[in-house]
Amino acid sequence: MINAVKLAIKQSYGSEEYTLIQAVNAIDEMNKSYNLIFERLGEWYGIYFPELKISNSLTLARLMNLTASKDQISLEDVEDIVGNNDTAKETYKNMFDNPGRVMEDEEKKVLLRYSQISMDIDEFRESLEEYIKSAISRLLPNTAYLTDNMIPAELLSKARSLERLVTMPASTIQLLGAEKALFKHIKFGSKPPKYGILFRLAAISQARNDIRGKLARVYAAKITTALKADIISKRFIGDELKKALDKSVERIMNSPPTIKKPIKRQRQFKRRRK
Amino acid sequence: MINAVKLAIKQSYGSEEYTLIQAVNAIDEMNKSYNLIFERLGEWYGIYFPELKISNSLTLARLMNLTASKDQISLEDVEDIVGNNDTAKETYKNMFDNPGRVMEDEEKKVLLRYSQISMDIDEFRESLEEYIKSAISRLLPNTAYLTDNMIPAELLSKARSLERLVTMPASTIQLLGAEKALFKHIKFGSKPPKYGILFRLAAISQARNDIRGKLARVYAAKITTALKADIISKRFIGDELKKALDKSVERIMNSPPTIKKPIKRQRQFKRRRK
Repeated sequence: MINAVKLAIKQSYGSEEYTLIQAVNAIDEMNKSYNLIFERLGEWYGIYFPELKISNSLTLARLMNLTASKDQISLEDVEDIVGNNDTAKETYKNMFDNPGRVMEDEEKKVLLRYSQISMDIDEFRESLEEYIKSAISRLLPNTAYLTDNMIPAELLSKARSLERLVTMPASTIQLLGAEKALFKHIKFGSKPPKYGILFRLAAISQARNDIRGKLARVYAAKITTALKADIISKRFIGDELKKALDKSVERIMNSPPTIKKPIKRQRQFKRRRK
Repeated sequence: MINAVKLAIKQSYGSEEYTLIQAVNAIDEMNKSYNLIFERLGEWYGIYFPELKISNSLTLARLMNLTASKDQISLEDVEDIVGNNDTAKETYKNMFDNPGRVMEDEEKKVLLRYSQISMDIDEFRESLEEYIKSAISRLLPNTAYLTDNMIPAELLSKARSLERLVTMPASTIQLLGAEKALFKHIKFGSKPPKYGILFRLAAISQARNDIRGKLARVYAAKITTALKADIISKRFIGDELKKALDKSVERIMNSPPTIKKPIKRQRQFKRRRK
């Protein structure tokens, strides 16, 4: 009896979708930590080199690692990190003729670890992304073919399981990730959202303002079909879907621009005043 | 002219207080990242070993590292991590007869890095704390003698510079870190806060409820004196201060418990209803 239950648990846990969802959440959290850490790193490093103009966070971490680990820094060392250009020369110059604090041994020790961890986190994000891509190509090949590798993963993470994802109507897929805006619309009468996660598609975010909603709708419809092919029938129909999708997208792209009706904004104001 | 300005900047940046403030903020952020990462780690690892009962996050990371890096795991390996006790045996048993997912190579690769980064972050927190302690013993020896090494650092980080910290009255020191509660009190008439960062002192947090405010007040008063000795006169008067403080603390500890007046709560309700 216990063994039967264990087997059932094993089967339900066995699907790769759960590890994939964990990976998507992990990458989101890692991005947050990464931003937090790099902001601090830049501020801290600025105490020693207030004149440094490096905006790329990874370059900054590498420079920090260099200054904390080496006593004699040459122009080549800096060029290895920044690249063989004027920025490298300016950085090198600033490192010697600079009005900042002199880094003491104890600080060097801490900063060496700090920069090391920042670089490690960056690498880890990459390996997470790699894993997500490969898992998506196994689990949702059709959907990935229509969009990219990260969007199906984000959709799955929002839906929380393949089963829930495949039973969602196209309109839900279209708005997944826009829950906040949707509830704001329902509660306060603000403008309804037109897209959630799908906005990350370049085809939608870079399109004309007035057709973005329409594009999101056709994408959502085709993604719903692709998900069914991925999860239920397990066939690859990406080519046909992509063709049909491209046709609809082209039709929308060529449509004349619509002029916004001012009535929408008025109604919104009325509702707010209540 | 430019050189004179550079020298002035160097002098103002030269003080260790700024690196110390950065370190305090860094440790706060690292703690947040650490908690986020370990929550995810536990959830993810639970897919493979749903029956594992390990609550210590570092142990979990080490076990994860073990399962992701080694194919043949022995009881000794588990005992090295968990300790030579029943938990180790149970963990070892659960690792083989378990209903979870089988870890695939790709997942192993990601999880190995994940556990590695978690352990690195933990180590980094320790080295940050070490640095903070040593910097505080140089900058604020009197205050550290009265409290501990982390509280003066937190106070400095809240005040944003030694100059601002030393000019604060005792009442401000007492409430540093309780800004939210203070503004809630001013705006909505809720109970006024009695302590901020100082609550982390065991002498205050473990004291009787009705004397905590009084203890915070005498601590804040003595800390104010200690800060002046640290920053302005730069003398060590910690011994005398500690004696006087201990005397006041003892007097408060031996005072009879006060009975709460119900009027306070009533006033609070009235104010809220407005």
